[in-house]
Amino acid sequence: MRVEVVAVGTELLLGQIADTNSQWLGEQLAANGIASHFHQHVGDNHERIVLALRTALTRSDAVIVSGGLGPTQDDITRAAIAEVMNVPLERDPALVTTIRGFFEARGRTMPDNNLLQADVPAGATIIAQSRGTAPGLICPVGQKVIYAVPGVPYEMTDMFERAILPDLLARQSATGERSTIASRVLRTWGASESALAEAVASRFSALVDDDRVTIAFLASGIEGIKVRITARGVDGAHATSLLNDEEARVRALITATLGDIVFGVDDETMEDAVATRLLTRGSTLAVAESVTGGLIASRLVNVAGASSWFRGGVVSYASEVKFDLLGVARGPVVSPEAAVTMARGVADLLGADVGLSVTGVAGPEEQDGQPAGTVFVGLSIDGHVQHVALRLPGDRPRVRAYGAISALDALRRELDRLAVT
Amino acid sequence: MRVEVVAVGTELLLGQIADTNSQWLGEQLAANGIASHFHQHVGDNHERIVLALRTALTRSDAVIVSGGLGPTQDDITRAAIAEVMNVPLERDPALVTTIRGFFEARGRTMPDNNLLQADVPAGATIIAQSRGTAPGLICPVGQKVIYAVPGVPYEMTDMFERAILPDLLARQSATGERSTIASRVLRTWGASESALAEAVASRFSALVDDDRVTIAFLASGIEGIKVRITARGVDGAHATSLLNDEEARVRALITATLGDIVFGVDDETMEDAVATRLLTRGSTLAVAESVTGGLIASRLVNVAGASSWFRGGVVSYASEVKFDLLGVARGPVVSPEAAVTMARGVADLLGADVGLSVTGVAGPEEQDGQPAGTVFVGLSIDGHVQHVALRLPGDRPRVRAYGAISALDALRRELDRLAVT
Repeated sequence: MRVEVVAVGTELLLGQIADTNSQWLGEQLAANGIASHFHQHVGDNHERIVLALRTALTRSDAVIVSGGLGPTQDDITRAAIAEVMNVPLERDPALVTTIRGFFEARGRTMPDNNLLQADVPAGATIIAQSRGTAPGLICPVGQKVIYAVPGVPYEMTDMFERAILPDLLARQSATGERSTIASRVLRTWGASESALAEAVASRFSALVDDDRVTIAFLASGIEGIKVRITARGVDGAHATSLLNDEEARVRALITATLGDIVFGVDDETMEDAVATRLLTRGSTLAVAESVTGGLIASRLVNVAGASSWFRGGVVSYASEVKFDLLGVARGPVVSPEAAVTMARGVADLLGADVGLSVTGVAGPEEQDGQPAGTVFVGLSIDGHVQHVALRLPGDRPRVRAYGAISALDALRRELDRLAVT
Repeated sequence: MRVEVVAVGTELLLGQIADTNSQWLGEQLAANGIASHFHQHVGDNHERIVLALRTALTRSDAVIVSGGLGPTQDDITRAAIAEVMNVPLERDPALVTTIRGFFEARGRTMPDNNLLQADVPAGATIIAQSRGTAPGLICPVGQKVIYAVPGVPYEMTDMFERAILPDLLARQSATGERSTIASRVLRTWGASESALAEAVASRFSALVDDDRVTIAFLASGIEGIKVRITARGVDGAHATSLLNDEEARVRALITATLGDIVFGVDDETMEDAVATRLLTRGSTLAVAESVTGGLIASRLVNVAGASSWFRGGVVSYASEVKFDLLGVARGPVVSPEAAVTMARGVADLLGADVGLSVTGVAGPEEQDGQPAGTVFVGLSIDGHVQHVALRLPGDRPRVRAYGAISALDALRRELDRLAVT
């Protein structure tokens, strides 16, 4: 049972809006163990919608088409489906009554073009609207099926959950296919995608002929590399069990080769990882930022309950602010010494147990004899200081973003080390 | 000349990430007058990528495929293209040297699987990487062409602008299609999309039957509403002339109804607008942030040359930091008085001419008797203080983001007012 999603709308092709419908449908299908191998976007053009639907029917068992069901001249999905089904459009009297009632209940006069929404391909079943006027459609095409839903997310999600998903699951169980998909993402920082791939290469090889468990890597830019494990089981418990087993194997391989680079699971961010450790330890934090310019502080305040451990920070962009407010000695400000003084200085100034600092060169020019990408992270934990030296790639915004997550990662690792010793 | 975009990645089908690449490419193609009738998403599966590419070639003249060019086992786009071209993959010695050099320059050992990225379909032209290791490819298929780019947006956009767009424009002009599209975006802050639409309604009506000039609204979330004007001329000068005329009309209508809400054009950000005014005035700036937690400072340091006017900031997240460091009187910290004291306090502390502050309630709970979304912006300009009171919608991250841009907008408007008087 393979479902293809076809999103209709010239605005999608022009990039004027993001296609959140296909993303949401993909997530729902996967969560229910229904395979989806292709998505398409197509504009508001009769011939092209017909072609997209025919293409989808050749390679998938069911098609969910969203958009183009409204009352205006560019809402032409109904007619395209009728052509693919090779049937006429017929006006449905019950729908006419419903649509008129929608307007009457709101004390509004119905523009006549709204009745176009009552024209449905002969043989289609109607999915009643509960949130708008455009009805959804279930359209049989031989043994296959086209589901049509409005493009408005709020209406589309309702119809999917209420009518389409139950119909798909019934069709799937009629074919004897029974499975549930579960997936989990391990978030890593500090290793390249290729190094990670090499670390878990043995699992990749072992899983080549396994159609139940898959591993994939997602490079998510400044947030590191994600390792996604997906498992298909006969039911939820089975999928979770397969997932847990595979996660243990993958984690062991990663840790053996690359060390403690997994900082979170699924939606856990690096700042979440830091927050958990500070809370466990009962410590408060202050940050001093030069090159990162407030990025670290703005990440930290996104953690729910940050006020219980986050005191605040100083953005010491001008050198004088480092000298006057944080006690850095006059002279070069991109150095390990400046970093540790900033960390200790901000912890003292704001009354925190832990100080974290970043000083560096975002580029493009060098500074204090240090090339662009040079970043020093300072840590002050209960008065004990240390630093980490980094060389980061990329342009100014990337050096800043990498610097921010790298500094948080350095603090995460040091707090873990202190917790063990 | 029709271009189809094919985005490769099982994570797209599963809805784990949004397909921002197709959206961006669609926007760029449209802006350059190149038609795009279809997009596809396909998973990391050899047969299905081959099928998606063949489908695209039947209905479009060129295909841009993004993703699946990395160094890991699930990066299989190269092999799929080779099959569609009916040629073997061959290892390119120059690419081997480049990829080895990328790692050597960073003092890292290259995992061997990185050399997979040097395997290219015979007959393909290489698009050199400037930001990573996976090269792009230009692959002729008869009279048509497949362009392959990495899925990492930062690398994809670079290759599109540097190599693919020029190649597409050359192919387009070879077909004798002649017209140039120019577009311009007016960036606004502080009005709703419907209010903007109402303000320029007379131009919308006037342009209904004009196939040369179009106006569209793009809601870009926390960055306000964009008004995009697009003009198609017989050449660049003609398109620009149409664009200038329409921009003047649209600006006049907006200003007459909604005031000074246009803060920038095209890529100009709110922080750019503030920076220009500070430079003109010869003033330096310091910021004190509570609810925004460093977001304003991190936006300001992204402006090139910020060090000539930006001193730095204080993230006064804990109330004690507001009292002890900024001189706020003990008591409620979400108030107009606290905001202006923070602004004056941070200007004094960091030695700046202008102080900008934000204090407020991100929610979900109220604070100091103020409901979530309450934000006070404080301004201190050469010692003269004032405040702006805001009620912002949305969850915690949105209140923060809206608060940051609103504070910068308040400073922009006040600096303009002072420049006139």
